[in-house]
Amino acid sequence: MARSLGELAVRFGCELIGDPAVIIERVATLANAGPGHLSFFANRAYRNELRATKASAVILCPGDAGDCPANTLLADDPYLVYARVAAELHPDPDVRPGIHPSAVVDETACLAAGAEICANVTIAADVRIGNGAYIAPGVVIGPRCQVGDGTRLLPNVTLVQDVVIGRRCIIHSGAVIGSDGFGNARSKSGWVKVPQVGGVSIGDDVEIGANSTIDRGAIDDTVIEEGVRIDNLVQIAHNVKIGAHTAMAALSGVSGSTVIGKRCMLAGQAGIVGHINICDDVIVGGATMISKDITAPGFYTGSFPGEPDRDWKRKVARFRKLEELSRRVTDLEKRQKDQDD
Amino acid sequence: MARSLGELAVRFGCELIGDPAVIIERVATLANAGPGHLSFFANRAYRNELRATKASAVILCPGDAGDCPANTLLADDPYLVYARVAAELHPDPDVRPGIHPSAVVDETACLAAGAEICANVTIAADVRIGNGAYIAPGVVIGPRCQVGDGTRLLPNVTLVQDVVIGRRCIIHSGAVIGSDGFGNARSKSGWVKVPQVGGVSIGDDVEIGANSTIDRGAIDDTVIEEGVRIDNLVQIAHNVKIGAHTAMAALSGVSGSTVIGKRCMLAGQAGIVGHINICDDVIVGGATMISKDITAPGFYTGSFPGEPDRDWKRKVARFRKLEELSRRVTDLEKRQKDQDD
Amino acid sequence: MARSLGELAVRFGCELIGDPAVIIERVATLANAGPGHLSFFANRAYRNELRATKASAVILCPGDAGDCPANTLLADDPYLVYARVAAELHPDPDVRPGIHPSAVVDETACLAAGAEICANVTIAADVRIGNGAYIAPGVVIGPRCQVGDGTRLLPNVTLVQDVVIGRRCIIHSGAVIGSDGFGNARSKSGWVKVPQVGGVSIGDDVEIGANSTIDRGAIDDTVIEEGVRIDNLVQIAHNVKIGAHTAMAALSGVSGSTVIGKRCMLAGQAGIVGHINICDDVIVGGATMISKDITAPGFYTGSFPGEPDRDWKRKVARFRKLEELSRRVTDLEKRQKDQDD
Repeated sequence: MARSLGELAVRFGCELIGDPAVIIERVATLANAGPGHLSFFANRAYRNELRATKASAVILCPGDAGDCPANTLLADDPYLVYARVAAELHPDPDVRPGIHPSAVVDETACLAAGAEICANVTIAADVRIGNGAYIAPGVVIGPRCQVGDGTRLLPNVTLVQDVVIGRRCIIHSGAVIGSDGFGNARSKSGWVKVPQVGGVSIGDDVEIGANSTIDRGAIDDTVIEEGVRIDNLVQIAHNVKIGAHTAMAALSGVSGSTVIGKRCMLAGQAGIVGHINICDDVIVGGATMISKDITAPGFYTGSFPGEPDRDWKRKVARFRKLEELSRRVTDLEKRQKDQDD
Repeated sequence: MARSLGELAVRFGCELIGDPAVIIERVATLANAGPGHLSFFANRAYRNELRATKASAVILCPGDAGDCPANTLLADDPYLVYARVAAELHPDPDVRPGIHPSAVVDETACLAAGAEICANVTIAADVRIGNGAYIAPGVVIGPRCQVGDGTRLLPNVTLVQDVVIGRRCIIHSGAVIGSDGFGNARSKSGWVKVPQVGGVSIGDDVEIGANSTIDRGAIDDTVIEEGVRIDNLVQIAHNVKIGAHTAMAALSGVSGSTVIGKRCMLAGQAGIVGHINICDDVIVGGATMISKDITAPGFYTGSFPGEPDRDWKRKVARFRKLEELSRRVTDLEKRQKDQDD
Repeated sequence: MARSLGELAVRFGCELIGDPAVIIERVATLANAGPGHLSFFANRAYRNELRATKASAVILCPGDAGDCPANTLLADDPYLVYARVAAELHPDPDVRPGIHPSAVVDETACLAAGAEICANVTIAADVRIGNGAYIAPGVVIGPRCQVGDGTRLLPNVTLVQDVVIGRRCIIHSGAVIGSDGFGNARSKSGWVKVPQVGGVSIGDDVEIGANSTIDRGAIDDTVIEEGVRIDNLVQIAHNVKIGAHTAMAALSGVSGSTVIGKRCMLAGQAGIVGHINICDDVIVGGATMISKDITAPGFYTGSFPGEPDRDWKRKVARFRKLEELSRRVTDLEKRQKDQDD
């Protein structure tokens, strides 16, 4: 989807320094760009790459233009403008409406004429698929699921049942949505399964990563609001509610019935225990476990960075003797007091 | 599967306070229940919801009946009785015996006449599927696997090979059972794969979560005993043995050759190193790593709860100076001693 | 694939103590071996099992031969020799060249005549599959992927697009390679997806575990060099580079744009933050988070082992009062100084 630099400048509202007739064919990194390539500069660590780039054009902040040997598109937020330009240059492949002959579709399913149903897909009873939706090979859609207009289910995704997904979502390969939550009641003879009868409700413009899992509600629905971004291998337990525009990085997890606010960010391997509330605008650091309600926006952490094993082991040994150290200080204080008296 | 309240009371041995003729159609939460709905009360945090509920009936402890505006079923363990009543009201869908024409079944496989094999399933040589088993769309069952009576494999599950599963199990979507364990011998030119030739043996009434992975044994089998409950995204390495009725929450993992006892519970993101033994009735807290044998039942933890980043960073800085602090206390003690002498 | 002990001794360069005519049919553990079985002894913890073994032969170090009641193959590294002998006795099943009629293959795909394409596979446009490759049931291979000679994709693997895999690799079930990286630019109205246009490049002799995820690069490729071993449920984010012969255990993860050196080892649940460099020959302990560059080879840790909850809670309480303890020591020091003056 080649575009002239002039077209891009007008379309994305950037001041252009350079030749508007240059044709841009694709994006590239500063280091590897060549003719016809567009790059961006948003991280000072790459200033040397900027100075040496062979890109045909670079998106950057006005203050950085002096370091750029190429045509420039000026933007206050170069990464954001880059995201939009890249989507123009590299659009999603067109949806080719129709149902592949190898797909197995229940006769009660209602598929929009503009949807693409690929090979080896299985669609169960009472499913609805919106216009412009793309259902990739190997996807299984269970009973009573709904997929909104323009939503893309990538290969081998499973919607187990009673999953309602909004418009323009992307569900990456291997994700499982609508699986039973982990509900077990204890009896004398072992665990008794608590039937899971809720569904999953996912808003518009949500992206869910590869091999992530989102359980159906125990009774009411598990809810993912609009604009949420979930990375790979993330676990969302039953009855959880994730507020709009919250982002969760890989290998993080939220236990059952917890409510997370809007615009939160969870770093990788973060974990949130069950039955708590996290307010809006909370950031949780990597490998941090949150075990209580959070009622004030801000940045929360609780993990130690790794260090050479010998140093760490010494610190841990000291930590184990903290009680003893504290007693020694108390002794010293007593003696001091005795002396003072 | 509507039932009268009287039927439910008799069937599940509850005292009924109210009208036995009321028809119950489904379960609901206290807050969202309406006519024909049954709820339960087992967590004091929801007492206001109990007082205001519009449910037709509520299962609760005798002591809580005074707060309930609806018909009540009295039970000493309301959650356990709820689990059983919910299973009565919301049974699994019936198995529809037969083999979908799109399924590909090896001629040496032996499928019970009462099993349901869904669309786009692939079944390899020497597989045995029991009566009443349900094999959902997209499932792949590799050579020499056995699936017990009444067991359900949900969409896109993979049994790689030599996996024997008992009766009435549920394997959730995307789970992979019987993959090669992580066995590598070091050589001068890099890793040499250690062939994995064992299988996986799973008892009756086991539930395994979505996208979890259970490796085949290196030589003998990996073993999951009866009644075990495994949540989503859990890793069980080769040669592990999980004792009966143990439960493991999401994103937890057990490394190779470790033996875990009966009735243990691992919280989310817990990790157990390899080649150790955990006795019966051990509970491991969230995000806790267990690195040595545990020989006494009880609750084990080792993780810090997250807190505001500034507070945490100060604590970590102090932690890093523990050795120095300890030296300062030793100095003080010496001087004190010098003074005393 | 039965072999005489004499054949094995010659082929793998071991001194044989015993009868070269004994036929070995399979491997077994010391404890469970019987006639026709070969075992190995490499861990002193199993010396009693060695003394009692009923194996027909055992691979062990020369110094341990005295404890072995069976025929022995002497080797300096018994585990490595075991790995090679086991591969001889238990070879991968033969590839049966051909395309199953239920597979759906795009007409532009180029499949070597010696490749096996199993049931319910879907192969997209411009895919190339090498000779001796095995593509198991349920695999989906997206556009422009390449699979090298002798590589095995196990059931329900997904290569999303633009994934190039070398020769003799094994990709275990449910792994997803080539999914979009987690790229999001912030705007006033929420996250804007940053198109991911790179691919994934995987060297020869790589093994990737079940349900692991490897994202495509944002612009350039994500790179996994030759001989890398990745366990189950591992996350590799976009633009990451993993050096040759590095091994990563289950539930570990590497965030975007991080470069990991050669021959590194990450234990289970380890996490590496984004945009950093880890040099060659680094070992990272279990559940350890690495947050900065590592420039010296060695062993790095940062996790606490779990312990009885009561003990741990006391330590955590002391840790929380470290600042106070430090102040008390400072006070004591001041007073001491006042006394000295």
